[in-house]
Amino acid sequence: MTKKLATIHHTAIQVKDIAKAVTWYLERFACEVEYQDESWAELKFANTSLALVLPEQHSYHFAIVTDDLTPYGEAVTHRDGTASVYIKDTDGNNVEMLTLQSEDDATAPSS
Amino acid sequence: MTKKLATIHHTAIQVKDIAKAVTWYLERFACEVEYQDESWAELKFANTSLALVLPEQHSYHFAIVTDDLTPYGEAVTHRDGTASVYIKDTDGNNVEMLTLQSEDDATAPSS
Repeated sequence: MTKKLATIHHTAIQVKDIAKAVTWYLERFACEVEYQDESWAELKFANTSLALVLPEQHSYHFAIVTDDLTPYGEAVTHRDGTASVYIKDTDGNNVEMLTLQSEDDATAPSS
Repeated sequence: MTKKLATIHHTAIQVKDIAKAVTWYLERFACEVEYQDESWAELKFANTSLALVLPEQHSYHFAIVTDDLTPYGEAVTHRDGTASVYIKDTDGNNVEMLTLQSEDDATAPSS
């Protein structure tokens, strides 16, 4: 009776200088840059990713993959076709419910 | 030329009432309780774990598994035989460098 567990896609932490933080992580840990620009970066680890975000753009959060965002509220569709809904737990921690790219998502308007 | 990437063992978030938060997560997501008492809990997801900690006991952090804590500073050995060193990134985010249980660790004093 093992159930299929949900995946944590990434954990996001705030940094003031994306490039500086990316260098710091790459120098110390076995991780790879999945994406990087001046406003955010995603570092790939063996089992999940670490997102580096600017404080003025995103809160601390972690993202759980789901097939269906409907129960969680109105979705925001991202430029890469993924979509998400941010919810808060009992203590105000931010949980991003995230669907990964699908054909339906890819045809939805970007934001 | 693929390198072996490091594993993120867990992400820890602060909650005021462990039992209440555990219930909230179990009701909404496909995860399982790995450990729970009144002072902290660990929820197992498919690829990593989510730790729920009390604000007065632990900061927000995430933990990266390593075989060797020596480069990171003086280790604290936990009751379960694991040991860790907390470091801070460029912006003060807490990164726990964590070794998993080994025979050497298991014979070290608890703390």
